[in-house]
Amino acid sequence: MIFLLKPKKMFESNNIPAFEGIMVPMVTPLHSNGELDKKGVERVVRHLCQGGVQGIFILGTTGEAPSLKPAISKDLIEISCKETNLKTPVFVGITHTSLEVSLKLARSAKENCAVAVVAALPYYFALDQDDIFQYYVKLADQSPLPLFLYNYPAMTKSTIAPETVLKLAKHANIMGLKDSSGNGVYFQKLLQIKETYPEFSLLVGPEEMLAQAVLSGADGGVNGGANIFPSLYVKMFEAAKNRDFEKIAMIQSLILEISDGIYSRSPKSSSYLCGVKESLYYLGICEPHLAPPLSPIDRKHKEEIIHHLEKILLKIKSL
Amino acid sequence: MIFLLKPKKMFESNNIPAFEGIMVPMVTPLHSNGELDKKGVERVVRHLCQGGVQGIFILGTTGEAPSLKPAISKDLIEISCKETNLKTPVFVGITHTSLEVSLKLARSAKENCAVAVVAALPYYFALDQDDIFQYYVKLADQSPLPLFLYNYPAMTKSTIAPETVLKLAKHANIMGLKDSSGNGVYFQKLLQIKETYPEFSLLVGPEEMLAQAVLSGADGGVNGGANIFPSLYVKMFEAAKNRDFEKIAMIQSLILEISDGIYSRSPKSSSYLCGVKESLYYLGICEPHLAPPLSPIDRKHKEEIIHHLEKILLKIKSL
Amino acid sequence: MIFLLKPKKMFESNNIPAFEGIMVPMVTPLHSNGELDKKGVERVVRHLCQGGVQGIFILGTTGEAPSLKPAISKDLIEISCKETNLKTPVFVGITHTSLEVSLKLARSAKENCAVAVVAALPYYFALDQDDIFQYYVKLADQSPLPLFLYNYPAMTKSTIAPETVLKLAKHANIMGLKDSSGNGVYFQKLLQIKETYPEFSLLVGPEEMLAQAVLSGADGGVNGGANIFPSLYVKMFEAAKNRDFEKIAMIQSLILEISDGIYSRSPKSSSYLCGVKESLYYLGICEPHLAPPLSPIDRKHKEEIIHHLEKILLKIKSL
Amino acid sequence: MIFLLKPKKMFESNNIPAFEGIMVPMVTPLHSNGELDKKGVERVVRHLCQGGVQGIFILGTTGEAPSLKPAISKDLIEISCKETNLKTPVFVGITHTSLEVSLKLARSAKENCAVAVVAALPYYFALDQDDIFQYYVKLADQSPLPLFLYNYPAMTKSTIAPETVLKLAKHANIMGLKDSSGNGVYFQKLLQIKETYPEFSLLVGPEEMLAQAVLSGADGGVNGGANIFPSLYVKMFEAAKNRDFEKIAMIQSLILEISDGIYSRSPKSSSYLCGVKESLYYLGICEPHLAPPLSPIDRKHKEEIIHHLEKILLKIKSL
Repeated sequence: MIFLLKPKKMFESNNIPAFEGIMVPMVTPLHSNGELDKKGVERVVRHLCQGGVQGIFILGTTGEAPSLKPAISKDLIEISCKETNLKTPVFVGITHTSLEVSLKLARSAKENCAVAVVAALPYYFALDQDDIFQYYVKLADQSPLPLFLYNYPAMTKSTIAPETVLKLAKHANIMGLKDSSGNGVYFQKLLQIKETYPEFSLLVGPEEMLAQAVLSGADGGVNGGANIFPSLYVKMFEAAKNRDFEKIAMIQSLILEISDGIYSRSPKSSSYLCGVKESLYYLGICEPHLAPPLSPIDRKHKEEIIHHLEKILLKIKSL
Repeated sequence: MIFLLKPKKMFESNNIPAFEGIMVPMVTPLHSNGELDKKGVERVVRHLCQGGVQGIFILGTTGEAPSLKPAISKDLIEISCKETNLKTPVFVGITHTSLEVSLKLARSAKENCAVAVVAALPYYFALDQDDIFQYYVKLADQSPLPLFLYNYPAMTKSTIAPETVLKLAKHANIMGLKDSSGNGVYFQKLLQIKETYPEFSLLVGPEEMLAQAVLSGADGGVNGGANIFPSLYVKMFEAAKNRDFEKIAMIQSLILEISDGIYSRSPKSSSYLCGVKESLYYLGICEPHLAPPLSPIDRKHKEEIIHHLEKILLKIKSL
Repeated sequence: MIFLLKPKKMFESNNIPAFEGIMVPMVTPLHSNGELDKKGVERVVRHLCQGGVQGIFILGTTGEAPSLKPAISKDLIEISCKETNLKTPVFVGITHTSLEVSLKLARSAKENCAVAVVAALPYYFALDQDDIFQYYVKLADQSPLPLFLYNYPAMTKSTIAPETVLKLAKHANIMGLKDSSGNGVYFQKLLQIKETYPEFSLLVGPEEMLAQAVLSGADGGVNGGANIFPSLYVKMFEAAKNRDFEKIAMIQSLILEISDGIYSRSPKSSSYLCGVKESLYYLGICEPHLAPPLSPIDRKHKEEIIHHLEKILLKIKSL
Repeated sequence: MIFLLKPKKMFESNNIPAFEGIMVPMVTPLHSNGELDKKGVERVVRHLCQGGVQGIFILGTTGEAPSLKPAISKDLIEISCKETNLKTPVFVGITHTSLEVSLKLARSAKENCAVAVVAALPYYFALDQDDIFQYYVKLADQSPLPLFLYNYPAMTKSTIAPETVLKLAKHANIMGLKDSSGNGVYFQKLLQIKETYPEFSLLVGPEEMLAQAVLSGADGGVNGGANIFPSLYVKMFEAAKNRDFEKIAMIQSLILEISDGIYSRSPKSSSYLCGVKESLYYLGICEPHLAPPLSPIDRKHKEEIIHHLEKILLKIKSL
């Protein structure tokens, strides 16, 4: 099957969301010298495709996009798109403080047959709703690929207000939004947008909220843990979609164990990212190194991660 | 029926939560001179009881407790408890920066046959988890009534970490927690506590999250809108409990309209409180005045509230 | 000499500030059972008077006012005022979330011959400038003693904007403002108010900023370290007033050592308060106990405090 | 005179700071199509040089560096350096979330004979002190030009703690720090570093704090208003250096009028930048356009700026 994101008008007639399921915010495997671990990229992509995920989102926060030099971003787009062989859609993060740089990334995404781009707000200046609206309209007007909005106020300082999302959802080139705010009230307000635009995809960032979001009407999740356990998150999406509460409870317990045992070992800012990358390293999939300015967690905390990872792997096997 | 909150041990054997349903965070009706609108209190209590709510929570944030002088708090406890005539359980907010003042309020609650007390953290100094744990143990040890914790970091500066809640849930005199953080990840972590302590009641503050919280395993809500429309929130609780997704969608749409049309008209801090009190005033239930330091919103915004209220009343009638 | 704060009109003709010098935010000595250490209060007051401070400010943040029960506040006002014997003016903190409680404290201050009251904003609800202006006008209108404003956004959530201070400075019963924000730009904006109202006293909270504030035109400081070393801060005030840069440099180095060595040993919220109280305990002046909800720092950190205290005492002796 | 920043060892023997005076954070003149207004750049640079400023800092926050595409940054470095003709030292902002991009900018700065580079923290991820230290050591080790640190927590989320600055000040390639936090306590703590490293330059960002900072021992300011009125800020620096309190008071009044009348007209995030650029446009120096994502303020607010500018120009003339 060749995946192509359909033009928005088609969705409008169909009332189906532009994207549904698990879109993995893929890590960027790096060598210790900071260069791209290209073999690692290929293995991660294959791991995710085999796990049955509905989409791969490269160059997001989990992908450490802001920390990468342009050449790495370019290579990552090429290799990821090539490796999926158009069978799993690739979404490319183009978040940048410069509009021109974002558009350049979008053109590169298009050339490599990615299906859409994802953009958080420029993250240096705090913005008001007027700035935000004008910025996204400019970006969507000029992007050669459909655009997903990305709300992450902890990183970008500003929230895309529900009223602004409603106005932006009208734009023919804006397909959906990923919310990583963790704010349950905000997300419920966003969901009302689907009454007017059923094809507007609403995806939730924090995996701890995946099931409750889908039960409330969300279209899926962009969940970092799917780097390690892709099929687990796909199963959770399906369980929530099918309102299979027993299955949800079983998987939710595992997801919270991943969150606690793998992401939260160290108080360092890099704790979550180290958790994901150390797990993939343990599984033989890619190198564990982080790009500066994030520095690694202690050896003691790394050992705790592996200890929890082993316990979780056993539990998943016996699911 | 005479309601008595059972000793915690009984719950432990039964695996039923200490409290389930809608606990209304009751407004404090005030005259324009700042004195208690006693007839208003009686009418509000009757309005809530007739609406079928499972509990009445006086002296919370919606009750403007921190702004009231001690004599008003005392009168409010007496009148509310008397008016319910032990048929609807009364919960008394004892949040205060001084432990001694909190305990005095708890004793007054006990004397008037309230069933439990509710305490947010002392809200002047920022606290660490050690401070928080020690504080709540002191309070629970000395309180003559069972204690509900109340997490509201926007007001108190500090969050009661899930690990701290887990430790506190062991305490024989701590029955549950109300979370008003709006943080969806935090709430999912709290819900894990019920695997160990099924009788520990978890209630959600923001009404926009009521259904999703109950679907996820929460025991109910402490929702301000229930002051105006008590039976609507009771119905939402039941719909979520019964996993009646069609009904949930119908009521959720109304709850979001209340949130937008009644609470969010003005950018002022008092916007939500004015929305609730102006609505009750329009319905002939009590006076609309706020206690200082909150000042009222503009006349224009008040008119918008009434305009939306009328529309919502019509929609509720035709439910 | 009997000190009486002159009516504001007199200042206006004289262009002299309502208060000038060091106003010590006095600790509240407590026994381990939480009761007031009355002998300790007397000794602290004598220690401060002998140190030559220009004012004593009881029931502020350093005085843990929000954590005290009403009876302790009442006793503290009585004992402090009596012990100064009208020779050092006493300022009484009346900060409270309830306007009525603040006014009651102000009446108690008046009865005991305090010279003025000090009020930060009610600290539960976030307030806008309109709320803030109306609140302070209500308070100043009804207070039987002149009022000092107290800006401390880290504790109260809201900043009293310079424009609001300018409007409030006109009020006949508002004498000045203490700023604990630590914000250098804000403080410079406040200083412009003195061009219009030279008698309006501007005092700086953080002692690290005392000299620079006075060099810029401030009238003094409300500095916690003056509990331990009253005459050191009086000397710093005079050095800054006299633009004696050599002396300023010498004392500033000590003040920064106090800040680092005594206040900042522990990451706990109580670190500063423990530093002050442990120092006074070491000097044989009062008990070191804190009121809940603050819990004490570790023994190791207490030992570090004493170690630094001893070094600082030697340096002060050789000044 | 050809300016060359001396190697740090030379300063160490001399006890003179690496930089002293006013370093202007230069705006980036842009055409309405987003391209660089090259003639505008030349005119701004000449305007600043004629105003007698001690340094020109391009590609900072006022220079909207994060919003520019790489080609504009490159051109700006070339034109600015060429136009100063080595008579006024040029400092180049290399702040970026990617270390590699920062180093590339540093090499470009070196090639064009800039004297030093300035780097705030990478501004996407929040960092701890360990991350911060390691990051700056990596940057300083590899930068071909001396490095100034730049503390701006409102933009970068993290503060460079005084202890970390002290450790970094030892590095042979780190010359000083610009602080835009506005935090008076923090700045006093930084000043202690000069006791150990007198040659370490400490510069203050907010111009409202320029005089008080220099009186306290700072080496100068990086003040946006110097784009419009370069000689005014140079005079303020000199007045503070000479402890000429009468002159300081006179100029401080103007600086606060600039802050209020030109920077604070609109609540929009772009208010300050619009104020500076509209003023330069009015003076015939360069185009007023902003780079996205900042959007312009209202026409009404622009008119207010010009009204205040005209008043201030008259006052400056009569100084």
